Amino acid sequence: MNLALLGPEDLTGEYTARITGRRLQHIKEVINGQSGDELTVGILNGKIGKGRITSINDHLLEIDIRWTAHPPAPLPANLIIALPRPKMLKRILQTCATMGVKNLYFINSYKVEKSFWKSPLLTHEKIKENLILGLEQAKDTIMPSVHLRSLFKPFVEDELPDIIKDTMALVAHPGGGTTCPQPLNQPATLAIGPEGGFTPYEVGKLMECGFQQIHLGSRILRVETAVPVLLAKLFS
Amino acid sequence: MNLALLGPEDLTGEYTARITGRRLQHIKEVINGQSGDELTVGILNGKIGKGRITSINDHLLEIDIRWTAHPPAPLPANLIIALPRPKMLKRILQTCATMGVKNLYFINSYKVEKSFWKSPLLTHEKIKENLILGLEQAKDTIMPSVHLRSLFKPFVEDELPDIIKDTMALVAHPGGGTTCPQPLNQPATLAIGPEGGFTPYEVGKLMECGFQQIHLGSRILRVETAVPVLLAKLFS
Repeated sequence: MNLALLGPEDLTGEYTARITGRRLQHIKEVINGQSGDELTVGILNGKIGKGRITSINDHLLEIDIRWTAHPPAPLPANLIIALPRPKMLKRILQTCATMGVKNLYFINSYKVEKSFWKSPLLTHEKIKENLILGLEQAKDTIMPSVHLRSLFKPFVEDELPDIIKDTMALVAHPGGGTTCPQPLNQPATLAIGPEGGFTPYEVGKLMECGFQQIHLGSRILRVETAVPVLLAKLFS
Repeated sequence: MNLALLGPEDLTGEYTARITGRRLQHIKEVINGQSGDELTVGILNGKIGKGRITSINDHLLEIDIRWTAHPPAPLPANLIIALPRPKMLKRILQTCATMGVKNLYFINSYKVEKSFWKSPLLTHEKIKENLILGLEQAKDTIMPSVHLRSLFKPFVEDELPDIIKDTMALVAHPGGGTTCPQPLNQPATLAIGPEGGFTPYEVGKLMECGFQQIHLGSRILRVETAVPVLLAKLFS
């Protein structure tokens, strides 16, 4: 936690806030925060600042805040990912939030196990929890939008054309296409398949929609590795 | 598991092998392998081939092998990583093996918790187990070397000068230096600090040894994300 992310409910005034729960525990146990110490804080979807601890006990931390900066620039990327297994989903949400992705779609694909769609991690609460961890790591405050789309074809036919408008649309799929552009440095929509890959039908549908196929060489990466690798190559 | 990695003990002849244990279980349960099916196999530190299943039961799988290819080229990178917490270590070992790193040092640093050095994951067996998972993911056969160095100063002074010879030596450290070269595409030695970073003393020692400081922008990445991101940027 390189920044404590505050919600509107944590503010007690324009320049004061109260911190409880997980963040308080982290500040007490990991940072060993004391009265007078300064912390980096941010307000959800807003500014970043310095919070000076005015009082701290086991249940509550109070701070005075100087708002000093804006959050870092977002990555100009939409991410379309075949829904991964729950443990991996958690890490992918955190990684995407940390790296600055603001628009994230989890979609169905032939090789996505049906049970993944029933994971308790897919609740709004749990998704938000993991995104916050990722934002706090990156000292960012802008909450990404996460969309769940459990039907492949209607998503690709009806929704995807609008999403990819004014972006370079790339589908990462081993064994074909061109090498990943490095760097690309222009707005992109990036589609990443499940373990085992999109089916040829699915790749075909994406290409019909306007996607170009790229690959990362002969080494097949796990989805949770492919996400940071692709983002790192595309954006400098 | 995109390739089943065989040890010398699995070979029953030049072109035949027996597969048991975890790999057999995966082939039965995930791939649903049947007599006559072909699998990608590799021999530890050697060639890759196609194995045709000649018999399969709950305890044993027998295959005939055609050796067809060499493993993919390694990444020309030495990695020096401050020992991460055990859960993260596991994933970093797998990621490094998958991405083709062949020379890996886990070192001490002021902010490495002492308990990390006592993790049962640091046994030779457990390290090898995770490297094999990473190799099988990438269809690689060449086992990386992993070195544990629990004293920072003697490592940097006595051993590191030889390691970085003929490589570009880079230390990834937030808040200074130049942006990460993208791509570099020449042999590199890459040092990555612990959560919280190397201390100024440690960065100083690395720079005295010949390292240049690079950074990845204002977003602080977790070590397990920084590893694939740096490798992806440096090598196309």
